[in-house]
Amino acid sequence: MATIKLILAYDGNRYSGWQTQNRPQSIVHGPRPKTIQEEIEKALEKVFKKKIRIEASGRTDAGVHAVAQVAHFALNRAFDLKKLPAALNAYLPSDILVSSAKKAPARFHARFDAEKKLYRYCVVNTAQRPLFVSGYAAWVRHPLDVKKMRRAARCLLGRHDFRSFQATDRVPRRSVTTVSKIRITRPRGCSMFPFMGRAVWILVDIEASGFLRNMVRNIVGTLIEVGRGRLDAEKIGEILRARDRRAAGPCAPAQGLYLMEVHYDRAF
Amino acid sequence: MATIKLILAYDGNRYSGWQTQNRPQSIVHGPRPKTIQEEIEKALEKVFKKKIRIEASGRTDAGVHAVAQVAHFALNRAFDLKKLPAALNAYLPSDILVSSAKKAPARFHARFDAEKKLYRYCVVNTAQRPLFVSGYAAWVRHPLDVKKMRRAARCLLGRHDFRSFQATDRVPRRSVTTVSKIRITRPRGCSMFPFMGRAVWILVDIEASGFLRNMVRNIVGTLIEVGRGRLDAEKIGEILRARDRRAAGPCAPAQGLYLMEVHYDRAF
Repeated sequence: MATIKLILAYDGNRYSGWQTQNRPQSIVHGPRPKTIQEEIEKALEKVFKKKIRIEASGRTDAGVHAVAQVAHFALNRAFDLKKLPAALNAYLPSDILVSSAKKAPARFHARFDAEKKLYRYCVVNTAQRPLFVSGYAAWVRHPLDVKKMRRAARCLLGRHDFRSFQATDRVPRRSVTTVSKIRITRPRGCSMFPFMGRAVWILVDIEASGFLRNMVRNIVGTLIEVGRGRLDAEKIGEILRARDRRAAGPCAPAQGLYLMEVHYDRAF
Repeated sequence: MATIKLILAYDGNRYSGWQTQNRPQSIVHGPRPKTIQEEIEKALEKVFKKKIRIEASGRTDAGVHAVAQVAHFALNRAFDLKKLPAALNAYLPSDILVSSAKKAPARFHARFDAEKKLYRYCVVNTAQRPLFVSGYAAWVRHPLDVKKMRRAARCLLGRHDFRSFQATDRVPRRSVTTVSKIRITRPRGCSMFPFMGRAVWILVDIEASGFLRNMVRNIVGTLIEVGRGRLDAEKIGEILRARDRRAAGPCAPAQGLYLMEVHYDRAF
């Protein structure tokens, strides 16, 4: 029995997330929307002629994308792993891509062993509604002051109780985690879209040991309030200490969010 | 009676083109797909409380995008044109955007007076299937030799009969036109997608006095054959002289094509 570690990318637009969350199947009306996990398990079944259960580093919500999600599964037969990505991609829809498959130590677990993850949130900051980025970035029409956003972001670094930035779905969860990096950048305008002008993209990169539900989107929504001048950068500390979701800003839309990296101990 | 000149952008993905082409309504099964023209005329009707017919610089095919399409319509009442883009955009779906509305000389005609147009074709050239660009670029997995493509493109400059690059729909049409510019560039990798690596975009810009049906897509499809090494750059002259669609390469998909600019005489 071997444990296989997959790295995969997906465009979350057509999916209800990695796995359907908090929605008992009986109360879902109409055809159940697809999940990424199902699609990959279907492809694994086609390749290996048996049902295989896969586990990811974490669930991503409906509409959230991944550049390098990590997942693992158990395999009890020999297979040339170099050929596995192409074999799976042949069965996968074009918006899910397996980019690597490697043997991991038998005890490797994509979720329990994840030490850090990096998420990126993409904002297009233009007065005019942007085209050609729908589903891939969030639009903010009000000019954002990136310096203020950076000042606010610094207050979030370190180990804190992030309950103020956690989804309020009444499920009691751990809310303490360590944010090791927050970087807000303004890359040069994407050269493919010269008509959008320069410096219209604002990227918020957040690295943490673990993420609470909706944490990145709630943090970004709050930082946007700061960037717009509707919230003082200095208020972030208070919001954090309030440990109350109502203290923070709105939740930014899912479409701007990308899971970029998952870090493990060197052993894996 | 005033003639109003609009500049507009649209994402062609959800539409059957600027206007339904060559498809008598009676043979279309199911609900007729939407056109951009219909959407704009609907918005004009909402704003002006009357049916208004709009004419564009040219029809774009299903799936083709526009960054700056030009269109005109006649208006027989006073209206603050500065407010017209916002008024129309309020009624338009989010994938169509009016960016400017100006009074033009009464005789201005968006199609007949167009002197030159610029189209851009976007190719993503990566071994791995790219994500997050679906509907906005064409993917070519084989490495393309841009120098060869440029050498081939030079043969197309000037006034020629481009019948070899014209859609073969049996409708007799003019096929002589003047290509004033072809530029093939490899911009730095788009900073929003750093994971896609650098130099993966190849942009083909073609400026001409007029475009035949599918001309850009047929030229790009042929240049890709050259870039892949399946066709000699020197063969382009022969293909042009053949005046036979079968001599040229395949038609590149619509989703990579953008109408970028329409040029008029200074008077307009």
